[in-house]
Parts: sequence; C-alpha cells; structure tokens
Amino acid sequence: MNFMDKALMCAKKAEHLGEVPIGAVIVKDGKVIATGYNMREKSQDATKHAEIIAIKRACNKLKSWRLDDCDIYVTLKPCPMCAGAILNARIRCCYYGAKNLNDNDDLIEKIMDSTKLFNHKTKLTFMPNEQCNIILKQFFKQKR
Amino acid sequence: MNFMDKALMCAKKAEHLGEVPIGAVIVKDGKVIATGYNMREKSQDATKHAEIIAIKRACNKLKSWRLDDCDIYVTLKPCPMCAGAILNARIRCCYYGAKNLNDNDDLIEKIMDSTKLFNHKTKLTFMPNEQCNIILKQFFKQKR
Repeated sequence: MNFMDKALMCAKKAEHLGEVPIGAVIVKDGKVIATGYNMREKSQDATKHAEIIAIKRACNKLKSWRLDDCDIYVTLKPCPMCAGAILNARIRCCYYGAKNLNDNDDLIEKIMDSTKLFNHKTKLTFMPNEQCNIILKQFFKQKR
Repeated sequence: MNFMDKALMCAKKAEHLGEVPIGAVIVKDGKVIATGYNMREKSQDATKHAEIIAIKRACNKLKSWRLDDCDIYVTLKPCPMCAGAILNARIRCCYYGAKNLNDNDDLIEKIMDSTKLFNHKTKLTFMPNEQCNIILKQFFKQKR
C-alpha cells in the first residue's frame, strides 16, 4: 500500500463519522509517523483539518516544530490554512491526490512558494488518485 | 483598554516565556471571548500561533466551528496559516497592529479574499499600534 492509499484510509475514517472525507499521513525515512483525518464537525473546531491534526501529532512525536525531511500525503489539495501550516512546519514535499475544483489563481502554489515570508519552501506535487476524488464526490452526492 | 491593547497584553505573556511576542483576542458582541499568544517554542508545535490558539478556544467556548459575528485583533499581520484559519472559522474582521516587513505581494489579502475557495470573506484592517512593533523589535534585538 502506498502512502496516498494510507491517506485515503484516513479519509474513510472521516467518512464513517459523517465528516468531509479528507485524510493525511506524514512520512519520514519511508515510514508513516503521523496520520489525521478531518474532524471539523465532530469537534466543532474550525482548525481540525486532516493536515493540522497530522502535523500536531508529528511535532509531538518528534518533539520538534520542525518537521525536516518529512513529507505529507493528503487526499485533497490543502486549503490556505493547511498549506500555511505545512510551510510553517518546514515539511519538504506535499503530495495531494485530488484537485480542489474551487481552487484557482494558484493561491496554494503562491503560499507554498512564499519565500519572502519564510526561509523554507515546500514542493507541491499532484499525485492523481481517482479514489481520492470518488470518495469526495460520493460524500457530497449523499449530502444533497 | 481597547482590544488591540488586550492583544498586546497577550503578546507580553509570550515575551515572558521567550516566545516571539505575538498575541490575539477574539471579540463577540463587544466582549473578549478568547485569547491566545504564540507558544511555538514551548510546545514545539508548528501550529501553536496566537491566532490558532484563540480560534480553538473561541470554537470551544461557542461550541461551534463557525465564529460568526466575531472579530479577531492580532498584534502582527497573520501568516498564511493563521489567515486561512481566520477565514475557515468565518471570522468577520481581522484587525492587526503591526505589519510584517517580509510580507509583500499581498498574499494575506489574497487569502482573506479567496471567495472561490470559500463562501466567506474576512475584512482585513491595519490598525497601527506602535507598541505592537516595538515589542517585536526589542525581542529580535535581544536575540541577536
């Protein structure tokens, strides 16, 4: 199972709870060190996106706010908050499995590339995974 | 004491802990409902900025991820993560007391105005407060 599939497994946990199905895993030295899935509704906390939860856990595990040499795999392209958190945590690469249809103007690319604000730059890579798309489409179809 | 002065008091708490002195307060119906100050170093958590802490507390207090009719006062212009969190929480207005000298290209304005990603838009207003600047300058001067 590849890392995007592991992120997808996290998204499925969110789905079971009735949350928008988005999942994330953080990888260091070829091993998953932290996972997260969207918990906004259950927690009623606007910051509880998959990526933020995974970053907090990874920081806690490594006892460092600097997640050097770590990569994050997320099922959906991050929102501005999560893109900023990924950058703040100095994560090396961010791989995402599905595009956000509402995202244009390359805002997320601009955040990841905002070297004037940060010394660090996170490489953002689209790693297409049809299942990451399907799980979201099905969720919103059921909600309608 | 105005709300920016209250945010500044939070920044001073961060300063006492050796953290970059940044503070935030969230206001609803003319009352402070949550406060936060930067705790990145003490917690070794990349997400523990003043705004994120205040937003989490406000969500917890209101038992809702939607901070409708809430405003946030922060001593320094938010970073992309915090700007995204403010938007995610549907905060009405964001007032900041000092500009971030490394911020250009209006990235934060673009995040706050990213209506394609969100139905919501947060009004961003610079409310100059010389003390917000001085506390940061003194902190970095001592660090050098």
